[in-house]
Amino acid sequence: MRMAQLSTTSGIPVATIKYYLREGLLPAGERQGPNQSLYGPEHLRRLRVIRGLLEVGGLSIAAAHQVIDAIDSDLGLSHTFDIAQRTVSPQIDGAALSPEAVAQVDAVLSGWHVSPDNPGRLAAARVLQTFAELGQPDLSGWVPGYAAAALAVAEADLDEIDARTDRESKTEMVVVGTVLGDALFAALRRAAQEHVSARRYPAPPNP
Amino acid sequence: MRMAQLSTTSGIPVATIKYYLREGLLPAGERQGPNQSLYGPEHLRRLRVIRGLLEVGGLSIAAAHQVIDAIDSDLGLSHTFDIAQRTVSPQIDGAALSPEAVAQVDAVLSGWHVSPDNPGRLAAARVLQTFAELGQPDLSGWVPGYAAAALAVAEADLDEIDARTDRESKTEMVVVGTVLGDALFAALRRAAQEHVSARRYPAPPNP
Repeated sequence: MRMAQLSTTSGIPVATIKYYLREGLLPAGERQGPNQSLYGPEHLRRLRVIRGLLEVGGLSIAAAHQVIDAIDSDLGLSHTFDIAQRTVSPQIDGAALSPEAVAQVDAVLSGWHVSPDNPGRLAAARVLQTFAELGQPDLSGWVPGYAAAALAVAEADLDEIDARTDRESKTEMVVVGTVLGDALFAALRRAAQEHVSARRYPAPPNP
Repeated sequence: MRMAQLSTTSGIPVATIKYYLREGLLPAGERQGPNQSLYGPEHLRRLRVIRGLLEVGGLSIAAAHQVIDAIDSDLGLSHTFDIAQRTVSPQIDGAALSPEAVAQVDAVLSGWHVSPDNPGRLAAARVLQTFAELGQPDLSGWVPGYAAAALAVAEADLDEIDARTDRESKTEMVVVGTVLGDALFAALRRAAQEHVSARRYPAPPNP
């Protein structure tokens, strides 16, 4: 299909598609002449991945580039997972973290197989350090519930990846699932907070 | 204390503190003369909240402003919750969502007390719509695990808020917990993914 049709079918303006092409997020079409290229279903699919990562996942162009390169690479699943995780995690200098916060996280992750430079381990320590600086060093009633829920979600993530049969679909789920899974969980947490609040504090009847 | 000491104690550069003052994120100190103001422990605490929201929570200055105003207001807890939730949720036009994606979310939230304009309900539908556009309309093996985990996390959130005794501490947990809870969960999910991957796919022994 031509650019105009790619735009109509995807619902993405031509100017935006040209921007993705210039940024190298979308591979070039098959050149038909000086001002015309043809695009196939793989371009349409890639456009939808790009939009999901940028608009729904909130990634920067640079971050989307990194994870899309990972989908296109021949890396194994665990390596792709590693790239996706690092791309969507804040860069944290482990040396700048307080030893107390790191020890708190390690106590929560006790018994888990987690390498010292796992981006989640450091990011979790950073959050706990922030609470400690706010005068809230004891979150022992709060954090374990998060860890148990995170483990359940990780099992669901791996179940979904295992259920896929072809390599491309698995890799795409690793990348898109890592990015959009955060957005999905945060969204469902808001809905669950309203539900739990309503149950705990029923509104008084109208007078 | 003077500005210089506020900077030393908080570890935040003077120029950054002045920026927060200009933006109205930090209330002005007590004016002592044309070029000198005094700051108290409440300024130090507020600085740490600001840094947590911006650096760890990833909020924009405008979003941090909204939630800090909510901490300072006399609004009830449920209203503060509502503001915090809306500030950290993407703005989504419900009319632009596919009815299928909304129906999928409503099926997952079945039995929950969630209002139609809950920002999480719409954001979750947006994520599911993105997957459907990627040719993955059936996530019935994946999403329910997320919903159950979100419910467990919401219970932990409300437990923590209920456990606090003074109004300011409760309100601060509503706001800071809503923002940093997302970061904490995403971090622990990365650690859990490494743990579950390692258990499911043990590395082959070194030759």
